[in-house]
Amino acid sequence: MTGFRELWDELAPVGRDPVSGGYLRYAFTEPERWLRDWFRRQAADRDMPVEDDGNGNLFAWWGPAGAGDAVLTGSHFDSVPHGGGYDGPLGIVSALLAVDALRARGVTPTRPVCVAAFAEEEGARFGVPCLGSRLLTGAIEPERAAALTDRDGITFGQALGGPPAGPVPGLLGRFGTFVELHVEQGRALVDVDAPVGVASAIWPHGRWRFDFHGEANHAGTTRMADRRDPMLTYAFTVLAANKEARLRGAHATVGRVAVEPNATNAVPALVRGWLDARAADPATLDGLVEAVRGKAVERAGRDGTTVAVTRESFTGVVDFDGPLAGRLAELLGGAPVLPTGAGHDAGVLAAHLPTAMLFVRNPTGVSHSPAEHATDDDCVAGVAALADVIEELACR
Amino acid sequence: MTGFRELWDELAPVGRDPVSGGYLRYAFTEPERWLRDWFRRQAADRDMPVEDDGNGNLFAWWGPAGAGDAVLTGSHFDSVPHGGGYDGPLGIVSALLAVDALRARGVTPTRPVCVAAFAEEEGARFGVPCLGSRLLTGAIEPERAAALTDRDGITFGQALGGPPAGPVPGLLGRFGTFVELHVEQGRALVDVDAPVGVASAIWPHGRWRFDFHGEANHAGTTRMADRRDPMLTYAFTVLAANKEARLRGAHATVGRVAVEPNATNAVPALVRGWLDARAADPATLDGLVEAVRGKAVERAGRDGTTVAVTRESFTGVVDFDGPLAGRLAELLGGAPVLPTGAGHDAGVLAAHLPTAMLFVRNPTGVSHSPAEHATDDDCVAGVAALADVIEELACR
Repeated sequence: MTGFRELWDELAPVGRDPVSGGYLRYAFTEPERWLRDWFRRQAADRDMPVEDDGNGNLFAWWGPAGAGDAVLTGSHFDSVPHGGGYDGPLGIVSALLAVDALRARGVTPTRPVCVAAFAEEEGARFGVPCLGSRLLTGAIEPERAAALTDRDGITFGQALGGPPAGPVPGLLGRFGTFVELHVEQGRALVDVDAPVGVASAIWPHGRWRFDFHGEANHAGTTRMADRRDPMLTYAFTVLAANKEARLRGAHATVGRVAVEPNATNAVPALVRGWLDARAADPATLDGLVEAVRGKAVERAGRDGTTVAVTRESFTGVVDFDGPLAGRLAELLGGAPVLPTGAGHDAGVLAAHLPTAMLFVRNPTGVSHSPAEHATDDDCVAGVAALADVIEELACR
Repeated sequence: MTGFRELWDELAPVGRDPVSGGYLRYAFTEPERWLRDWFRRQAADRDMPVEDDGNGNLFAWWGPAGAGDAVLTGSHFDSVPHGGGYDGPLGIVSALLAVDALRARGVTPTRPVCVAAFAEEEGARFGVPCLGSRLLTGAIEPERAAALTDRDGITFGQALGGPPAGPVPGLLGRFGTFVELHVEQGRALVDVDAPVGVASAIWPHGRWRFDFHGEANHAGTTRMADRRDPMLTYAFTVLAANKEARLRGAHATVGRVAVEPNATNAVPALVRGWLDARAADPATLDGLVEAVRGKAVERAGRDGTTVAVTRESFTGVVDFDGPLAGRLAELLGGAPVLPTGAGHDAGVLAAHLPTAMLFVRNPTGVSHSPAEHATDDDCVAGVAALADVIEELACR
């Protein structure tokens, strides 16, 4: 049986930037396509037939063909720009190894087990996170998804090779439970000294694009009083978002910006900033976004600029199945149960079937960064925990 | 004799972005190469032999071959991103038409007249403005210039097709006077209702790159208190630069920014901002830049980030030749004499020979923008003024 490190090392160089040490594994670009082919080869080696749902998601099956109430597991291959290697792939590699572990234990599934590789979970290429699972479950119109563009103007439909299939009820209806294993993206498991935990909920969260329009002009000759500089409105809004989030115990980030013309000696015509906002409950999140929008509009009035806000994506609060989480925590010897601020395909699937998540400890808590990490011992513990969960749910 | 509009229309579509209406004429890219070829054809049509100085600058000669004390005129073809069409090309087109006008007047130059097209005046591609004139005059080491890279990693040496020649004293020594005609980049000529003015001085100015380093992290799961977010330090610095410039009657602009990884759901690892700063005198400029640097460092301490400041270019105050400016203003019937905050090749040449600039009225004062404009009547008045100046300096 292949060990964790052996399998992990096969993926380590794929899409890795030699300078940052982070990964550039955008959906349907060459590195991510390589990983998808790797997934097909791994499934074939395990005699697991692979099904493509027409939305870019892959499903590898083990156990009684055609039976319902399947246990779905897996995660995604795609990364944020210069992200870590664990966010996503750890859930897929652990699922394949859990199948190996169960076979080594000599247990036979009485219900099907299915390992998924979901497409464009990060939304790093086409802007909408969990795009694959949203399409599968009908949470986004396939026409809208097909028309989403990347930074080079390539549409999702072009990258996929054709229009996405959209909802596939005949496939979705075969799943009885979804369990996604994922590296933790905070330090809660470090604090309680546990290698593996169970998720209780996902904070509501979304992305809002702020377009600040001003007037392009010469940086050397335009009097300060004559300017309509959208960079000032943008900068004020960044600081306001930070302050308003702290006041509410929420999270707000402006990590992406685009400037036109983006020249050293020109006052910009347009600055676009993307606000990522999250909070423990919807009312707090609404209050946060409205407060930031209000501050931006107020400042725009002083700068002679305008601001337009577009909600690009939104995911309401996700409460994972309470009885399932309790059952898994007990099965795993009293594993801690904790909420998270990060979105996942499990958050999309949770609206359709009992869903749970397992988290594997992250020593620094850092994620979406080359510093993201989990020890091999903890990853092996994660595989064992996932095997225990699948045995409990699919093999009894 | 070709009219202004006829010649101008030949250039209008070259490198024009159909969406913004602005120009993308970066040095040695396809549109700018087309304009250089156009310049060679125009010179050939006028029996003006063209000389290349090995630094990317072109010189077309009219008048007694080999004689010294030449009158140099001309400007540049390259633009800022989505810039206007007048900044640069107006000076070259007006120079060619001024030669035509003098021939039509039947005057013969007693000293050579030379029309120049300087390379990379904006610094929009390789980061150092007036790169061509700096090389010609020895104001930048050719080795340093050769190694400058554009945003795709292409060096200036590669774009030029070989290492730049550096200073060419044998050429520079043949010039007795330089007169650059340029669209005005402010509203001073509108205020005094004059189509053409004469420059008195260029404010000292420069570009400083601020590198704000923090720690990449997950936007959803990282507590605000645990972040080291360089976007906050950047935003604070943008607002501080604006405030410090206003306090001093100086100009400060942050029009260009680069973010890593620039993902919506990641706290950035690095934010780079470029400060363009200008003031009427060197002491004010130094005080401005030091104040901005101090505010950035102070804020970095609070954000858990670091800031490193690199001066990428600097041009000291340029006082144009006073007697020459006075002579030209008188020749042009009492044209107004005014300073500018914009850098020009004339500012570089002024350290080596008596230099003057003519400005043509800009109705809105907007420059480095698609809205940059001058009326045909004012452009024709500019050609006539330049012809008068050349006749005065080269034909008596």
